[in-house]
Amino acid sequence: MPIRTIDPLELEGYRKLLLSKAMPPNSLGRLSELALELALITPKPLAKAALLLFAADHGVVEEGVTHSPVEITYQQCRNFANGGGACALFAALNGVQLWVIDVGVNHAFSSSDAVIDGKVAWGSRNMLQTSALEEEACRKAMACGVFHVDRIAHQGFDTVAFGEMGVGNTTSASCIASALTGLDASLVTGRGSGLGDAELNHKIGVVRKALAFHPEREPYQVLINLGGYEIAAIAGGMIRAAELGLPILLDGFVVTAAALIAVGLEPAVSGYLVPCHRSGMQGHQAMLEYLGCAKPLLDLGMQLGEGTGALVAWPLVRLASHILGDMTSFEEGGVTDSTALLKSLGVL
Amino acid sequence: MPIRTIDPLELEGYRKLLLSKAMPPNSLGRLSELALELALITPKPLAKAALLLFAADHGVVEEGVTHSPVEITYQQCRNFANGGGACALFAALNGVQLWVIDVGVNHAFSSSDAVIDGKVAWGSRNMLQTSALEEEACRKAMACGVFHVDRIAHQGFDTVAFGEMGVGNTTSASCIASALTGLDASLVTGRGSGLGDAELNHKIGVVRKALAFHPEREPYQVLINLGGYEIAAIAGGMIRAAELGLPILLDGFVVTAAALIAVGLEPAVSGYLVPCHRSGMQGHQAMLEYLGCAKPLLDLGMQLGEGTGALVAWPLVRLASHILGDMTSFEEGGVTDSTALLKSLGVL
Repeated sequence: MPIRTIDPLELEGYRKLLLSKAMPPNSLGRLSELALELALITPKPLAKAALLLFAADHGVVEEGVTHSPVEITYQQCRNFANGGGACALFAALNGVQLWVIDVGVNHAFSSSDAVIDGKVAWGSRNMLQTSALEEEACRKAMACGVFHVDRIAHQGFDTVAFGEMGVGNTTSASCIASALTGLDASLVTGRGSGLGDAELNHKIGVVRKALAFHPEREPYQVLINLGGYEIAAIAGGMIRAAELGLPILLDGFVVTAAALIAVGLEPAVSGYLVPCHRSGMQGHQAMLEYLGCAKPLLDLGMQLGEGTGALVAWPLVRLASHILGDMTSFEEGGVTDSTALLKSLGVL
Repeated sequence: MPIRTIDPLELEGYRKLLLSKAMPPNSLGRLSELALELALITPKPLAKAALLLFAADHGVVEEGVTHSPVEITYQQCRNFANGGGACALFAALNGVQLWVIDVGVNHAFSSSDAVIDGKVAWGSRNMLQTSALEEEACRKAMACGVFHVDRIAHQGFDTVAFGEMGVGNTTSASCIASALTGLDASLVTGRGSGLGDAELNHKIGVVRKALAFHPEREPYQVLINLGGYEIAAIAGGMIRAAELGLPILLDGFVVTAAALIAVGLEPAVSGYLVPCHRSGMQGHQAMLEYLGCAKPLLDLGMQLGEGTGALVAWPLVRLASHILGDMTSFEEGGVTDSTALLKSLGVL
């Protein structure tokens, strides 16, 4: 399905509409810009957001890149799907519907776990020994992302956020970031769930080795060699969301790495990304800038993953989407048009 | 009524509780800090927020400090009270109850205007000629703020935001900021609704003249000499909110000037201020730092007033207030305690 390319030239009409609103020009700062950006995706106010949280395990944990025990991946999936953890709490508070989908977790969930089955593998392989993903399974994971975006669009959701869970996945994300942006590993590798200095240096070394071992820089091959199954699912889902014209709430470090893949495969996806927050993880801002998303809404030092940055930002995005359509104009509000006055004075 | 002084030593217990939550330590950044700050005010999650928007006119407009025609004050009050403007839209979207209260507008509202009557004067006086406020009227305006905070607390609201409308009130706010922080007028005076360079310099000059004409620096006298009636009402309301133990959603430039007065009169009020956003207005950050509120939640370049910064931030504040009480712990979620592990490794 072709993606409609976002055309910034369409902005002129929306800018005029914004200046008619009963407030001084530019007084809403980034929120007004976001209102315009969203209008280019869809002129309708946003009402219903879904968070698709994809989970997978990572073979690279064999290299000692994290302190987190691997069982945390499946334990947290179960926890989230049963209403626990930050993501389920934030989703409930902010009116976002959450689904937890296993694409590559090294655990056999039972039906009582409430985790949706989309399993394509029992985890990725150690990228220092071979390609992280098997090609057939990678394609299936991307199709799983497409399937769930289709499903929620069919259910009437007009906005989609992606989240992730996977011990070791920030290493994969750093590899993707370095491979696709060309930035040195040290600039796009962070402390994850709490690494000390020596461990961070070790992690950077692992990223460097992986990039040397896999010299290909074509986005799909980067995904196969250095990715994770949750990242593949998210990349696939993002492409579908853009095809369907849905705004994508762009979360933090790992989800942004998936966006690098999606945009690498389909450049027009970038017009549908709504940068929600600047993660506390080293390198996230560089990735955002590479994607043309340099001004995220929030900068709270969050670095939890799970889609939490998107969840926290959703009320702001929703609000911004109502400005052009629902705020009274000077005329409607019976208010003297001070913006016209500023124009007549040559200030605007 | 005495204000319970916020004691940062009470934080230890809440910090332990935070570390028990099923997420890596410090992964929520500023949101976790806010959760702790709110717990010191009240351990209960916040559920119901009210925005009290006080409006007044300003005699200093005679000095040419703004392009905005003065009738905009009353027109916008009517617009807001009937569901128009940014504040009413944002309040409706974010589930905040808005009241528009006239304390000093130079207009006789009719009952169909839906503006609440708290009028103590028909506007302030020109501060370059005499004190801006009359003392008796100022006391009544502060009492009006107290009255409405009492009223909303009685109605079960657990959080209060203040907003303002008043053409010319950023000049008054700059005077208060300079008088109470000691910062030079040029550092705390901004472009308001759209001043050019020469006009901004003129406005700075007016602030300097006002400060020279009124050398007193005692907070109540500063309010009388340089304030506005809406600022008096907000300052009174803030003191009452702190007495009642309610968190105060601290909005932008003008509301923060009112907070300088409130904290000047009752220093313990500062523990109840939740800094919602950094206004785009020159000097706001300096005022926040003076109040010990250096890290506002949002930095979106907004500078509209009306309480809009508080309204946009409310969902984040509400969410943060649920973290300590409602997020599952490692134990509750059946998740391996990676935080304890980090501690045992000496990383924490």
